[in-house]
Amino acid sequence: MDRERLRFLLAKVAAKEIDVEAAMEELSTLPFEDLGFAHVDHHRGVRGAMPEVVLAQGKTPAQVAAIARSIAERSGRFLVTRLEPAHLDALRVAVPAVSHSPDARLAWYDPEPRPRSGNVTVVTAGTSDIPVAEEAAVTAEMLGAQVHRFFDVGVAGIHRLADKLPALRRANALVVVAGMEGALPSVVAGLVDIPVIAVPTSVGYGASFGGLAALLAMLNSCATGVAVVNIDNGFGAGYLAGLINRLAVRAGEGG
Amino acid sequence: MDRERLRFLLAKVAAKEIDVEAAMEELSTLPFEDLGFAHVDHHRGVRGAMPEVVLAQGKTPAQVAAIARSIAERSGRFLVTRLEPAHLDALRVAVPAVSHSPDARLAWYDPEPRPRSGNVTVVTAGTSDIPVAEEAAVTAEMLGAQVHRFFDVGVAGIHRLADKLPALRRANALVVVAGMEGALPSVVAGLVDIPVIAVPTSVGYGASFGGLAALLAMLNSCATGVAVVNIDNGFGAGYLAGLINRLAVRAGEGG
Amino acid sequence: MDRERLRFLLAKVAAKEIDVEAAMEELSTLPFEDLGFAHVDHHRGVRGAMPEVVLAQGKTPAQVAAIARSIAERSGRFLVTRLEPAHLDALRVAVPAVSHSPDARLAWYDPEPRPRSGNVTVVTAGTSDIPVAEEAAVTAEMLGAQVHRFFDVGVAGIHRLADKLPALRRANALVVVAGMEGALPSVVAGLVDIPVIAVPTSVGYGASFGGLAALLAMLNSCATGVAVVNIDNGFGAGYLAGLINRLAVRAGEGG
Amino acid sequence: MDRERLRFLLAKVAAKEIDVEAAMEELSTLPFEDLGFAHVDHHRGVRGAMPEVVLAQGKTPAQVAAIARSIAERSGRFLVTRLEPAHLDALRVAVPAVSHSPDARLAWYDPEPRPRSGNVTVVTAGTSDIPVAEEAAVTAEMLGAQVHRFFDVGVAGIHRLADKLPALRRANALVVVAGMEGALPSVVAGLVDIPVIAVPTSVGYGASFGGLAALLAMLNSCATGVAVVNIDNGFGAGYLAGLINRLAVRAGEGG
Amino acid sequence: MDRERLRFLLAKVAAKEIDVEAAMEELSTLPFEDLGFAHVDHHRGVRGAMPEVVLAQGKTPAQVAAIARSIAERSGRFLVTRLEPAHLDALRVAVPAVSHSPDARLAWYDPEPRPRSGNVTVVTAGTSDIPVAEEAAVTAEMLGAQVHRFFDVGVAGIHRLADKLPALRRANALVVVAGMEGALPSVVAGLVDIPVIAVPTSVGYGASFGGLAALLAMLNSCATGVAVVNIDNGFGAGYLAGLINRLAVRAGEGG
Amino acid sequence: MDRERLRFLLAKVAAKEIDVEAAMEELSTLPFEDLGFAHVDHHRGVRGAMPEVVLAQGKTPAQVAAIARSIAERSGRFLVTRLEPAHLDALRVAVPAVSHSPDARLAWYDPEPRPRSGNVTVVTAGTSDIPVAEEAAVTAEMLGAQVHRFFDVGVAGIHRLADKLPALRRANALVVVAGMEGALPSVVAGLVDIPVIAVPTSVGYGASFGGLAALLAMLNSCATGVAVVNIDNGFGAGYLAGLINRLAVRAGEGG
Amino acid sequence: MDRERLRFLLAKVAAKEIDVEAAMEELSTLPFEDLGFAHVDHHRGVRGAMPEVVLAQGKTPAQVAAIARSIAERSGRFLVTRLEPAHLDALRVAVPAVSHSPDARLAWYDPEPRPRSGNVTVVTAGTSDIPVAEEAAVTAEMLGAQVHRFFDVGVAGIHRLADKLPALRRANALVVVAGMEGALPSVVAGLVDIPVIAVPTSVGYGASFGGLAALLAMLNSCATGVAVVNIDNGFGAGYLAGLINRLAVRAGEGG
Amino acid sequence: MDRERLRFLLAKVAAKEIDVEAAMEELSTLPFEDLGFAHVDHHRGVRGAMPEVVLAQGKTPAQVAAIARSIAERSGRFLVTRLEPAHLDALRVAVPAVSHSPDARLAWYDPEPRPRSGNVTVVTAGTSDIPVAEEAAVTAEMLGAQVHRFFDVGVAGIHRLADKLPALRRANALVVVAGMEGALPSVVAGLVDIPVIAVPTSVGYGASFGGLAALLAMLNSCATGVAVVNIDNGFGAGYLAGLINRLAVRAGEGG
Repeated sequence: MDRERLRFLLAKVAAKEIDVEAAMEELSTLPFEDLGFAHVDHHRGVRGAMPEVVLAQGKTPAQVAAIARSIAERSGRFLVTRLEPAHLDALRVAVPAVSHSPDARLAWYDPEPRPRSGNVTVVTAGTSDIPVAEEAAVTAEMLGAQVHRFFDVGVAGIHRLADKLPALRRANALVVVAGMEGALPSVVAGLVDIPVIAVPTSVGYGASFGGLAALLAMLNSCATGVAVVNIDNGFGAGYLAGLINRLAVRAGEGG
Repeated sequence: MDRERLRFLLAKVAAKEIDVEAAMEELSTLPFEDLGFAHVDHHRGVRGAMPEVVLAQGKTPAQVAAIARSIAERSGRFLVTRLEPAHLDALRVAVPAVSHSPDARLAWYDPEPRPRSGNVTVVTAGTSDIPVAEEAAVTAEMLGAQVHRFFDVGVAGIHRLADKLPALRRANALVVVAGMEGALPSVVAGLVDIPVIAVPTSVGYGASFGGLAALLAMLNSCATGVAVVNIDNGFGAGYLAGLINRLAVRAGEGG
Repeated sequence: MDRERLRFLLAKVAAKEIDVEAAMEELSTLPFEDLGFAHVDHHRGVRGAMPEVVLAQGKTPAQVAAIARSIAERSGRFLVTRLEPAHLDALRVAVPAVSHSPDARLAWYDPEPRPRSGNVTVVTAGTSDIPVAEEAAVTAEMLGAQVHRFFDVGVAGIHRLADKLPALRRANALVVVAGMEGALPSVVAGLVDIPVIAVPTSVGYGASFGGLAALLAMLNSCATGVAVVNIDNGFGAGYLAGLINRLAVRAGEGG
Repeated sequence: MDRERLRFLLAKVAAKEIDVEAAMEELSTLPFEDLGFAHVDHHRGVRGAMPEVVLAQGKTPAQVAAIARSIAERSGRFLVTRLEPAHLDALRVAVPAVSHSPDARLAWYDPEPRPRSGNVTVVTAGTSDIPVAEEAAVTAEMLGAQVHRFFDVGVAGIHRLADKLPALRRANALVVVAGMEGALPSVVAGLVDIPVIAVPTSVGYGASFGGLAALLAMLNSCATGVAVVNIDNGFGAGYLAGLINRLAVRAGEGG
Repeated sequence: MDRERLRFLLAKVAAKEIDVEAAMEELSTLPFEDLGFAHVDHHRGVRGAMPEVVLAQGKTPAQVAAIARSIAERSGRFLVTRLEPAHLDALRVAVPAVSHSPDARLAWYDPEPRPRSGNVTVVTAGTSDIPVAEEAAVTAEMLGAQVHRFFDVGVAGIHRLADKLPALRRANALVVVAGMEGALPSVVAGLVDIPVIAVPTSVGYGASFGGLAALLAMLNSCATGVAVVNIDNGFGAGYLAGLINRLAVRAGEGG
Repeated sequence: MDRERLRFLLAKVAAKEIDVEAAMEELSTLPFEDLGFAHVDHHRGVRGAMPEVVLAQGKTPAQVAAIARSIAERSGRFLVTRLEPAHLDALRVAVPAVSHSPDARLAWYDPEPRPRSGNVTVVTAGTSDIPVAEEAAVTAEMLGAQVHRFFDVGVAGIHRLADKLPALRRANALVVVAGMEGALPSVVAGLVDIPVIAVPTSVGYGASFGGLAALLAMLNSCATGVAVVNIDNGFGAGYLAGLINRLAVRAGEGG
Repeated sequence: MDRERLRFLLAKVAAKEIDVEAAMEELSTLPFEDLGFAHVDHHRGVRGAMPEVVLAQGKTPAQVAAIARSIAERSGRFLVTRLEPAHLDALRVAVPAVSHSPDARLAWYDPEPRPRSGNVTVVTAGTSDIPVAEEAAVTAEMLGAQVHRFFDVGVAGIHRLADKLPALRRANALVVVAGMEGALPSVVAGLVDIPVIAVPTSVGYGASFGGLAALLAMLNSCATGVAVVNIDNGFGAGYLAGLINRLAVRAGEGG
Repeated sequence: MDRERLRFLLAKVAAKEIDVEAAMEELSTLPFEDLGFAHVDHHRGVRGAMPEVVLAQGKTPAQVAAIARSIAERSGRFLVTRLEPAHLDALRVAVPAVSHSPDARLAWYDPEPRPRSGNVTVVTAGTSDIPVAEEAAVTAEMLGAQVHRFFDVGVAGIHRLADKLPALRRANALVVVAGMEGALPSVVAGLVDIPVIAVPTSVGYGASFGGLAALLAMLNSCATGVAVVNIDNGFGAGYLAGLINRLAVRAGEGG
């Protein structure tokens, strides 16, 4: 997995700088430390210049803080998602320079943010979808994307979409966030030829079944170029949009 | 339930033309006959000038034919839905003058069709939704509606809808038929102020779950003026649209 | 979409009162303002004399208040649904003359209510269904309907329905609200020839699954003339009933 | 479990007619024989004068025939449910005197049928529910019940029920069979004070989900005195109704 | 519906004691009063000597108290189910002599309880099922049944059931209450020939899905003589068991 | 929507080459023709150099053939998905030069295929997932992607994945196809920093519920960079992967 | 069921030390006492040297305390699962020497713990799965297993698993705990030939549906040697792993 | 993963028998061959002396035959599950010495079967569960287990189980197969202290929902020592039981 390191190790074996058993031993060690309750993967940060991500939900504030500090010390950047206020309090003690977005329930540490480029555009059907959309937008920004936001352009007033179209068509990737009947991604994807990441939200009541209706609608989209992430998973959509944007930008740079 | 007949009966009691026990007896008889396997309700035809309706699915051809003939003899009009070819064969023996639409899986007998008036407009998202739409259209026609059809104007090409809007806005009731993500009723209802009857169809695969995705989407429509019928229930939508159209027409006639 | 305005614009082009680029520009502006978090659609109010509607659920009190005030200033009427007390507090500051129904969780602003006409009748199966029924009733009233209410006439005592029948038959549209087994719409629709809007409620426990049982029952109604809205969606049913009533009334007026 | 036999055995031990080990042995033998693929329980027939019941579905014709013959030889009565034609063919070879009802998909052997008494009444909502109702009726008859049938008195025409009420009220137990919205049991149970066994059927389409809608409706009945069996389980309902009827009759006989 | 009253009315018409229109009028009045939010059905109490039942869930304390007092004044007996403490407080003001069972979440008023007879036996799988079982037991007692209770005899220790069998077999009806896998009703019904009313409870977690697992298990019971009520519906099971017990007792009395 | 054409039209108005009404008329015509049962959208092909796509499922062979021929005549390229043999027979008559892949259930017409570039890599968990994977691969190829295939590298033998990693990491987009537990996309996405389009398949039985288990697993992936399409929707995944690949390639070309 | 006791009893009958009726009586007594609300089964402790287990959820603190004390007095060991703090408070009064794990929500009383042997290894995908894993670990320890823990080695970083493999392969049974997509058991089982008990957890959100996604994934595992317990049922998994471990150890001891 | 081979390779590097790049190359090759459509994993057979397993469902007969022949040639043993007759025909051509069980839908090739030891006992609730049980039994036999079968000892006749208990208690692992309400595993596990692998079957109808009812019941078992496999997955249960049995036997052998 780390071909250079492996090559170097083999070279040392060939040079008899270490013996076979020691090489065996070293091959089995992997570069992460053990915090007892969570293995922090420092590979990822190195590998992709991606921030490491911590899902706060289900973890205690102390766990989140300890994991985040460990990441900060080594790879210098992290993103914490689905944060409760108690998590934030603990985080601020552990990593005082942490930033956060209350809307998006995100906290992040990124002391040397990279310049933003390309174009990820985030669209919501309604006002209530904004927190999920913000989660996507901030995540994509951490991956280096320039992000544009168009909120509340929902389906029951499709004419609202018309004057947004030229702007939407300039994106490298669209994140389209909608609850209730979840129709907006289909409508948008029918009008553009750009990757559309659809995010169903739990906005709605009754037979929305916590976002299931929107999820199923998006999975069954008759438009092309649409894929779907979990209900309320703005982070996942923003991350994927950021990856796509990076491909486009990098390629444009001769990368 | 039949106040005139009741008043007449009470008058006969008062006039001692019949005695109390005979009146008791007569009060308990209701105007339907018993075919053994199905009570044919002749009230409805009389009451509302509506054709009586037979759901063929789950009945044997012989049952459907016997029920239909019985209706034909008394109230002169019927509609049979969800017809298999074997049902049709039996029907044609029993009621030779029966009409049928293979697309819509309907047969009907309506020797003296009433003039059609008003405007029920039936719209489909895709080509595969046409059979259900035809079921709605023929049903509304049997209730006296003038019916307009706009097929295959689906959501993933919302611009196709634009030049239909003036026509759609002339309807008294819209029947909007869609499978897959079921978004068309929301889009249409966002552009008009007319009752929209949404019909989810079982068109689709995978996570459409036999039309469940479209059904849920339509129930969660964020547009106003939409109600939903069962999956593939073109008949139900056409009937309701016919009722609404009749209200509009009748009122217009000073009814 | 606004043919007169379009025609006028083209005429100005023809008259060289504006040049092509300016016309392009004007064509792309649509009559709504941007509040940052919600586009308020002033079209609808103009188009259909319908109040604009705000779904409070999922929005902050400040968002609801700002949206409502914006509507009030321009189109003069609004309806807010699924209101929590905190929303109401904010609304009252923003629009002091707002009315509200605590039962129906509605607030509205309608300083010059139109005269009520026609007949929308709202029926509930049980006492617990009343809040949803009130939501339907107030909504229909805002659309200009005369509304009649018959509450607690449920199925397990079908004889209670008997003396209501003549009154029910005078309606232009019936809204029938029921939880638990959701049978009342089928029973009512079997006795009338009027559009029935069925509203499943989340009243019940266990295998009612939050209203799913009632919803499925209503979708599978063997009676004709029934369509269904989302669980607890009194607003949607009242709106559709109001549209149907308006058709009947208008037509009766020579509309 | 068989106290007399146990007492007798203990007495023989006390009398030293058998030794302890033989008693141990005998205690462990139970009166059934092993056919290799199915243990036939001859207890039940002895115990309750109930016929033994074989569910044919999922068994090969040869298995059904062998099991049935074994029962016939020992306890003299059996009932086979959910029979396919191939099962019947095999059965007729094994037990030539077998009776069958093609409608109800039942076969039975009952050479000395007991006199029928009491009153089990079976009601269906529609014509398509008749096969399930017949399964219930024949089963109750095998348990000694006098059975009355009222078919096709469904909810969308509740007036059809009115003249049946006096007859329904004479039953010891009502079996009410309905598909689609499954409302009939609630309506009936609201009008009587008799145990109602509700049987949902798979009659319907779309959101009936194979009878789930009717099942949920019946479980959520707001009427009292209703319990529910599996979808299409006419046998189960007929058996339970037969048990209740027997209680009423037996008690009436001073049993 | 009330044949004697109808006959009397017709006799008065025949005797010209009242005229036709007055008879028409009187025929349309039904013996219940309108509390505004709930129709109290005094028929039922009269008809079946059953207490009238009020489901408190979903009603305000004031509504429950007003309904209960109205019933108490006329028919002298009532039962309130799914009671919250606030309901009880209001009830005690309205009907000071009300009794209640905190376990069963029931309150009732029954100043002249009838003597108890027959045998309804209530069995639970676990300790956590007791509240639902108590709801069943108290309900059956209000219907005049002698009730026996066997709690915590669950399936994972089937030997616990052995010494209860003779007692269980003396019942006229068994109510078997179980959560989790819901297997107890099948096991019990396999050992007796008595009607078994199975009550799934919401006891469990994870894939019990709020009692759905137990409900499905009971509906699919391979034992005969079992029917099922809604999840946690002890009341419904107790009521049905009370009806069956009454049949057996009455018959035994020559009733 | 077509700004140049609009500008040209306005210029003609300004130049008085056409009058206002004619401009109105022309504005309302959109460039598609009406086949009676399906509107063929020629915009898309022009706009994005994407083939037009026809979902054969639910359409008759004659409908598919007519739609395809119409597309072929105008835009020169099409792709037909979910093809049955009867559809193919009709297609071959209508468009003799059509190609097809029986595995992928695709047919396409692409007489002047563009050169393939970039890298879309399609991976399957098992052999049974190959038809869906082929659908994705052929679709991506039609969008100009160079496609690599790695089939049967499933999770229960994760070591099989190891030597594929370097190849996987060269892709612009990965399509990962899996049925049963659907774990492969999570595992792959945990090892790369490339967009992963996950395709659940209906491969499996029992609690796979037609692919639902795999779908849910993929939606809940704890790996980053994953989005999901409908069950068995190889086409959708291939299309989206093709779009992403095009972004990367185009950007690389200075596009 | 207790052959020795039965043989002894029969011998006494043969010896006429007791008479037949007394033997009948004694045969019907079973060795458990009745606490009124819960039968405590002292058999199990005797039989298998297993602690008796009390599920606290759904029981009152007083019930849990009384049951636990009763067990402690007789069989000397117990385990209480799914404990709330109030249960613990009551338990500590009733059995002061009780131990507890707040993470695992367990309390236990085991004054003479047996020596631990063998190897049960508990693995989690994430940090949030630890409480369930601890429940499994403590339970297996109470059954005498030596337990090893590897937490947070989840799928989206499969390389983390590599250096754990030799340790995992030394286990007699593996308990693998995972939420979200639930893929870890499949991956692990693909790499070992050891029984894997998979525990889905409710960790996740949206379309995890409270652990359903993980549960379905595990049931559909394409790896061999996997079985699944209920969502969050660490206890059940630990118990089964303990049984398997005992088999391996015992056998190794010549047991 | 193959420590010996790795050590050998490193030794060659140290001995300079191969250079670093060649070692890099060799490290990346893994011992399986590529059949184009399926990677056959020869590791497993070597590693665990387990037969390799091919799931025939979803594969073509030619694919199954080619995969099986490849396995036979190298590792000498295989098992094919969920076989259709066409698969068998192809298999017999490819591997003439293949054995098969039509009941269990299995084919296998095991020219040098190992001696059978230990005790795996397979129990079914009903006759219709036998095919799944046979799949489990044959699978366990291929893993070297002595297998005992007790079929048709279902819950609705729990006394049938009594005389089987001593035999059941001699097993190292029990496979308990049941459809419908799926109660048998709970009952059995309540009576033994042996690992119980529960297999839900799709036997049943209506609300069994293809085995879902049995699956949920088994997952919610209140008995200890139970884990569950997929619906109808006899193979999975037999494999796991075989693994457990091997542990017990091996340990007993001092293994």
